[in-house]
Amino acid sequence: MPLITFTPDNRSANVAVGTSLLDAAARAGVTIPAPCGGEGVCGECRVRVTQGTVERLQRGGLSPAELDQGWALACSSRVVGDATIAIVPFSPTGAAQMVTSAEAQTAGTPATVRVVRAEPLAAKRLLRVPPPEAGQGACDCERLTRALSSTGGPQHAIASLDALRELAAALRACDGEITVTLAEGDLGGTTEILRVEPGDTTARQFGLAIDVGTTTCAVNLVDLAHNRLLGTRANYNGQLARGADIISRINYARPPERLAELRRLVLETLNRLVAGVCAPHGCQPREIDNVVVAGNTTMTHLLLGLDPQYIRLAPYTPTVNQPPRLRAGEVGLDVSPSACVTVAPSVGSYVGGDITAGLLRTALAEPGHDLRLFLDIGTNAEVVVGTGEWLMACAASAGPAFEGSGVRCGMRATPGAIERVALDPATAAPSVAVVGGGRPRGVCGSGMIDLLAELWLSGLLDSSGKLHPDRGGDRIRPTKDSARNLEYEIVPAAASETGAAITLDERDIQNLLRTKAAVYAAGALMLKSIGLDLNAVTEVYVAGGFGRYLDLRKSIQIGLLPDLPLERFTYLGNSSLAGAQMMLCSAAARRRVVEMARRITYLELNVDPAYMSEYTAALFLPHTDLARFPTVQAAAGRAKSDAPGAISGARP
Amino acid sequence: MPLITFTPDNRSANVAVGTSLLDAAARAGVTIPAPCGGEGVCGECRVRVTQGTVERLQRGGLSPAELDQGWALACSSRVVGDATIAIVPFSPTGAAQMVTSAEAQTAGTPATVRVVRAEPLAAKRLLRVPPPEAGQGACDCERLTRALSSTGGPQHAIASLDALRELAAALRACDGEITVTLAEGDLGGTTEILRVEPGDTTARQFGLAIDVGTTTCAVNLVDLAHNRLLGTRANYNGQLARGADIISRINYARPPERLAELRRLVLETLNRLVAGVCAPHGCQPREIDNVVVAGNTTMTHLLLGLDPQYIRLAPYTPTVNQPPRLRAGEVGLDVSPSACVTVAPSVGSYVGGDITAGLLRTALAEPGHDLRLFLDIGTNAEVVVGTGEWLMACAASAGPAFEGSGVRCGMRATPGAIERVALDPATAAPSVAVVGGGRPRGVCGSGMIDLLAELWLSGLLDSSGKLHPDRGGDRIRPTKDSARNLEYEIVPAAASETGAAITLDERDIQNLLRTKAAVYAAGALMLKSIGLDLNAVTEVYVAGGFGRYLDLRKSIQIGLLPDLPLERFTYLGNSSLAGAQMMLCSAAARRRVVEMARRITYLELNVDPAYMSEYTAALFLPHTDLARFPTVQAAAGRAKSDAPGAISGARP
Repeated sequence: MPLITFTPDNRSANVAVGTSLLDAAARAGVTIPAPCGGEGVCGECRVRVTQGTVERLQRGGLSPAELDQGWALACSSRVVGDATIAIVPFSPTGAAQMVTSAEAQTAGTPATVRVVRAEPLAAKRLLRVPPPEAGQGACDCERLTRALSSTGGPQHAIASLDALRELAAALRACDGEITVTLAEGDLGGTTEILRVEPGDTTARQFGLAIDVGTTTCAVNLVDLAHNRLLGTRANYNGQLARGADIISRINYARPPERLAELRRLVLETLNRLVAGVCAPHGCQPREIDNVVVAGNTTMTHLLLGLDPQYIRLAPYTPTVNQPPRLRAGEVGLDVSPSACVTVAPSVGSYVGGDITAGLLRTALAEPGHDLRLFLDIGTNAEVVVGTGEWLMACAASAGPAFEGSGVRCGMRATPGAIERVALDPATAAPSVAVVGGGRPRGVCGSGMIDLLAELWLSGLLDSSGKLHPDRGGDRIRPTKDSARNLEYEIVPAAASETGAAITLDERDIQNLLRTKAAVYAAGALMLKSIGLDLNAVTEVYVAGGFGRYLDLRKSIQIGLLPDLPLERFTYLGNSSLAGAQMMLCSAAARRRVVEMARRITYLELNVDPAYMSEYTAALFLPHTDLARFPTVQAAAGRAKSDAPGAISGARP
Repeated sequence: MPLITFTPDNRSANVAVGTSLLDAAARAGVTIPAPCGGEGVCGECRVRVTQGTVERLQRGGLSPAELDQGWALACSSRVVGDATIAIVPFSPTGAAQMVTSAEAQTAGTPATVRVVRAEPLAAKRLLRVPPPEAGQGACDCERLTRALSSTGGPQHAIASLDALRELAAALRACDGEITVTLAEGDLGGTTEILRVEPGDTTARQFGLAIDVGTTTCAVNLVDLAHNRLLGTRANYNGQLARGADIISRINYARPPERLAELRRLVLETLNRLVAGVCAPHGCQPREIDNVVVAGNTTMTHLLLGLDPQYIRLAPYTPTVNQPPRLRAGEVGLDVSPSACVTVAPSVGSYVGGDITAGLLRTALAEPGHDLRLFLDIGTNAEVVVGTGEWLMACAASAGPAFEGSGVRCGMRATPGAIERVALDPATAAPSVAVVGGGRPRGVCGSGMIDLLAELWLSGLLDSSGKLHPDRGGDRIRPTKDSARNLEYEIVPAAASETGAAITLDERDIQNLLRTKAAVYAAGALMLKSIGLDLNAVTEVYVAGGFGRYLDLRKSIQIGLLPDLPLERFTYLGNSSLAGAQMMLCSAAARRRVVEMARRITYLELNVDPAYMSEYTAALFLPHTDLARFPTVQAAAGRAKSDAPGAISGARP
């Protein structure tokens, strides 16, 4: 059977002739995202054949130049013989880079959850246990628990079987000096002794914060003894090859063996990330006693092997919103098998633990009457609003346009992505900033927002998302497919990394409008439902994978964000991972996230006809009701004479 | 490689030429006891070659007739080609048959622990959980716990991951009718939901009582819904091939991989017994939610994978006397993985959970001043004495003479064992009763006691254990090996199943005397140490694997039991298994066994020089101090004229 090798990791597999490259990659343990489900539509699974050859079943939107360079779609290319395939390696987005230290992470967060000293759920304690004495008859375990209770520890601690198996040797290795890892019981239960180690190992306490995203998984390794972030790793969720979004994963998981497969895939992703993040720091995964997982409700179900079918069916019922505290061994994580695994609680089927964890990075639910808004903008947009007295949440299916899917030139905020755009008002020629500084390959979320805003402000695009055929010179032209579908050329073929022009057409623009309309409508409707207005909001938190920067002014100009003074906004980046890390390090954060999840009232938009009219009204730039965007209206007036807005981003 | 097949179970293995039959049996998953550790001494591993041939390295005490019939010692026979080997199948002793129903088992036990309705640790409860409602947002788990608390169940129950994985489907299979298995938390912890099943399965609740003996393992399957014993199974402990007694097992387990091997061996034995006891009753092992294990401290350590080394080393310290409540999955038992496993608590290294469980069958520790004595007579003899105010225990190494080892003609109380003996005073000819009624193969414990007493009472044996060469006619003669070692022929070669005479020689008698002396001395010394006398004992409980019957009068006549009125004795048989079953069925029994284990003061005989003098004084029939055995002295006087005592046994 031909040998297919995937670079840069040099993983390989022998597969039969005729196997798709996507399946060959899965066999080799390599994840290639295939958001369209392998239908050759999205172009996300593009790879480059660097040795040997493959049979391409379709061009899949690749230019002749790209085909010459060896580019192929993994989903629609078949193995014909030995080959080496270069995959586009996963690079964490800027958002994942945002978290650089545990201290920085807590900056700006409310005092109630600020972490000074790490307080993990499972914490180490140094003990000196006296040796056994003849005639006393106290077993090792009894002397251990006595030593614990007589030194201010818990009065009744129960040793786990793992701890008992190590106990006899550990007690005798260092004259009775021993380090125990203790976990307080769930719901006030008895304290458990998870592990025992000979000698003093209290300087080695490690924890993992895990964000299980539908597209991307990310882990932070934290040195809990010194409360600092050691490293972070991210990669595609291995389930990506089995469907791009939540609904396709739920459908895929219907037969029990496929639910088991999805669980295995995400565990493989996580366990590789754990091994990778530990290695450079001389930390063994087995030394990790604490894990916090944040993910949306479906991701949590798939990770735990819970049937997600009823999440998708009315009345949209998860098996569990707040999973009990679990052991890493039963979850399947390759850390200490007795490690405590805490899962961030969900509010409902479409407002998950990623959101409640993310809320820890905000002042929502702080005492007082200030009205605060949290927006997590992804394929699903989740909106939470509230004061110290009440909290309300909803979710809207926004589509993945800002994450690089559903827009032909779209890509994640990885090297080669245009992340910022400004137009010359005279020539309509764009100047762009590219992640990594090289030649551009596509446009990420923040670049799309810039582009939409600049096109509209410079009059090349009307409020309904139509390009003006008679403005912008050659840059605006019909697409090859349809004379009625215009496109705007951002980068000509000659200047592009792929050899194909980077363009945005009116269909792409409609997808972007649908996404931004869904987000805005969800927030507006939720406030309306309780008789409030977006203008009453005193603080807005924005989370999502747009890239390193989010231009707030331009996000308002396209009507994605409400028209509020810029100082009321905070851009959080990947708040789910940051929130998981806060839960890892702070007992107050763990209490607070549970309390918040309980307090949040979940609003089901699917069943509310008012949502559709809000949504339809928001499908314009910035909105059909311009009175809602007074400063944008003013800026649009000025834009005719002024230069396009200077590049001014909100850095997370 | 030659194929070796073991009958009657037809298990087979391909092994290399030169492999010992003992190792071939282990490879085939067949346990052949080898108490002497494979040295060809004890003859316990005798098998019959029924097809093919093997190379015998030594005769191993087999007669020419036996060799002709194909008998061989498995430990000292080597594979030369394909062969079929008949092993002596394990038959439960009469003692195991004693327990015939849960009701009968509790008869005669104190009211405080008498079981009326089974109260297992993990109990089922039928619930009706309302379906999810739109706009309510309650997840499956929340509706379940609400249904529990609103119907008088626990206010805060935590679902296990196993339960959560079944929950969504179970709730929707029978319109919300669901059976939950609940276990109250350890030390007052939170109640856990172990399992959920669709519909009403409350009529199917099963539990296992397990006795893990050094030689034999036994399991009782109990229908907890109807509080009745369904079946019982017993077999050799698979560890038997790795050493006959506790000390040799501890030594064997020194390298961690060997500890793991011993754990695997006993788990294989238990899991086979579980499968076997379940099958005839249409019960799936996965339906078992409750397990109670009773065993000596070393057996418990080996089963749980705990290092037993310090049990053997002064000051004799187990890792744990009272293991926490465990899950069957972590223990390795093939029942429901979330089943609660309770281990009967030990008192110390040599007074284990088999003893504390056995005490549940007695009135020891009942309120009041009555002095009661409990004797568990096995390879190790454990003695417990006490009143309602105090309890004291000790252990003595008694040797396996009454269990069929260390005595050439000894065997367990299986078919072919002589279980009762009476001598004709005129001819010294014995009349015997054989288990199963066929031709005799050897003598079990109860037969040995009868034989010793009858030989002494009829004047063929003196008090020091010497046979009279000039009495008994041809039946008393020198052994083939030594003219100075006399033997008594119980059954001539022509009447024996094996074709060899069944005889008892003076070395055998010394072994029996050492065993009975150790038991008596332990009890006498313990009472003496607190200024009390054996005569003060109002009730004596005798446990052990002698056989179906134990002749109390003769046990007193040889000085094994103290000379007390017969009505003060109760013979319990396998009290460990019976006690484990009481713990399985009764919450009071579970509380009581823990409380008793805590109250017992452990006396270390090894370090007491007074024990050696007590022991030496007891090495006579019945004792050097005849004043301690007044009725025996009187009987011995009468015996010269009377016929030997009629066969009158104490049935357990």
